[in-house]
Amino acid sequence: MASERVWTAGLLVIGDEILSGRTEDRNVAPVATWLNLQGVRLAEVRMVPDDAGRIADAVNAMRGAYDYLFTTGGIGPTHDDITVDAIAAALGVEVVVHPRARAMLEAHYQGRGELTEARLRMARVPAGAELIENVATGAPGIRAGNIFILAGIPKVAAMMLEALSGQIEGGRPMLSRTIGCWVPESEVADLLRITEGAHPGCQIGSYPFFREGRAGANFVIRGTDAAALDACHADLCARLAAAGRACVAEGL
Amino acid sequence: MASERVWTAGLLVIGDEILSGRTEDRNVAPVATWLNLQGVRLAEVRMVPDDAGRIADAVNAMRGAYDYLFTTGGIGPTHDDITVDAIAAALGVEVVVHPRARAMLEAHYQGRGELTEARLRMARVPAGAELIENVATGAPGIRAGNIFILAGIPKVAAMMLEALSGQIEGGRPMLSRTIGCWVPESEVADLLRITEGAHPGCQIGSYPFFREGRAGANFVIRGTDAAALDACHADLCARLAAAGRACVAEGL
Repeated sequence: MASERVWTAGLLVIGDEILSGRTEDRNVAPVATWLNLQGVRLAEVRMVPDDAGRIADAVNAMRGAYDYLFTTGGIGPTHDDITVDAIAAALGVEVVVHPRARAMLEAHYQGRGELTEARLRMARVPAGAELIENVATGAPGIRAGNIFILAGIPKVAAMMLEALSGQIEGGRPMLSRTIGCWVPESEVADLLRITEGAHPGCQIGSYPFFREGRAGANFVIRGTDAAALDACHADLCARLAAAGRACVAEGL
Repeated sequence: MASERVWTAGLLVIGDEILSGRTEDRNVAPVATWLNLQGVRLAEVRMVPDDAGRIADAVNAMRGAYDYLFTTGGIGPTHDDITVDAIAAALGVEVVVHPRARAMLEAHYQGRGELTEARLRMARVPAGAELIENVATGAPGIRAGNIFILAGIPKVAAMMLEALSGQIEGGRPMLSRTIGCWVPESEVADLLRITEGAHPGCQIGSYPFFREGRAGANFVIRGTDAAALDACHADLCARLAAAGRACVAEGL
C-alpha cells in the first residue's frame, strides 16, 4: 500500500472555566468526529486559560505543527473574550471590524436592541480573515489562514462546523471496527499484540471496563483500509474464540 | 496584598480513543477540582495519542513549565499501554519492576488467576519512582519526581487522587462566587468590565446560556481572598440591580 498524505489538525480549547473544573468541555469529541468525516486526524488538544500570551503561544505552536488549527471559546462580547485579539497578535496582524460580520450582527439585532460597542466586538477579526456562518446567534466564527475560530458553546460550535462541512481538504477517514468481549484484558494481552502485528495498517486499542460485577473490554481496530480492518476483525474474533472467549462483533 | 507563590500543574491526557472522538474525556474537570482543593491551579491540559515520542515531548515540555504534571491513561496491561515507557524515556531512566507493585499485584490476583507477563507490566515504573495506591484494581499509580501517572478510567483515577490528597504542597485555593442573571451578556459587558477593574485580585468570567427561550448568563468571580470576592459579589449585584436586572446570588 502506497503511503498517503495524512491530514492533521490541532484543537485549542480556551477558557478559565474549563481549567477551573467548573465546566466540562463538550467540544473535543464532536470536533474529533467531525474532523474524521472530513478525512482529517485530530492530532493534539490543548486547553489554556483566558490569557492572551498563553493563547498566542499555543496558537503559534499548533498552527505550524498541523495542517489545521481549530479553537473554541472566547469570541463573545465581554471583556474576558480575548481570543480574536490573542490570535491576531500571534499572527502579527491588526484586529479589524469585518463589514459583513457587522451587517450580520445588525440584521440579527434588528428589533432585539441596539448594536452596542460590546456586541460590535463580535464583528472583530484578525485582518484578512473570512467568516464562518452561524445562523444561531448572528455572531460568526472566523477563518484566519489555517486557523478556524469557533464559539465555546457546544451547540453554536456544532453549527459552525456544519457550515464548514466539505470546505476543508482531507485524506482518507480513519475507520474502525469494535469487538466486545467479557474477558479481563490482561488475559488476552499477548493475543492482541500478536494479532495487531499480523495486520499491518491496523492498530488495536484495548478499552477495559467493569460492569455487572464482571470484567470486559472493547477492542477497537483502527485503520484507513476497510478490507484490512475486516480481515483483522475476523482474525481477532477467531483467535478470541480459539481461546474460549466468545465475542460480540459490534462491541459491548 | 503581598504577592504569594502560585502553585501550578499541567495535565496530560493520553489516548487514541480521546482524539478519535470515541471516548469523551471525563478526567479534566475532576482533576482540576481536586487540584484546586490542594491549592494548585490547573494551568494547561494537553491530549496526545498513544505515541511514545509525542508523549515524551509533551511530558518534557510540561514537567518543566509547571510545579506538577499529572497524566491519565495508558498504564494497563496491553500493548497499547506505553505511558510508563514513554515517561521513562522522557526522564532518561530505565524501566524497572517495582517490588512493592509486584507484591500488590500478586496479592490482588491471588485466587483470580495467574500473575502473567501482561499483568506484571502494571508493576513497571520509571527507575526511582514511588507508587500511588489503588485499592480498586491492585495496579498502582506512579509518582516519578514531579510527575503523577494516573489511570485513564475515571473511577480509578479518582481513587488515586484520593490517595494523594494532602500529599502535595500548594498555596491558597482559588475561590469563586457565582451570580446568575437573566440578561444577554452583551447588555452588561461594560458593567462587568468596570466592576472587575474596581476589584483588584478578582476576575469576572461571563458564561452565557439560552434556556426556556431566554438569554441569561452566569458571572463567575474568582480570586484567593474571600473578603475581596464577597465585596466584588455585592458590588456586581448592586450594579446589576441599578441597571434594572435582578440577580440570583447563587447562579442560574
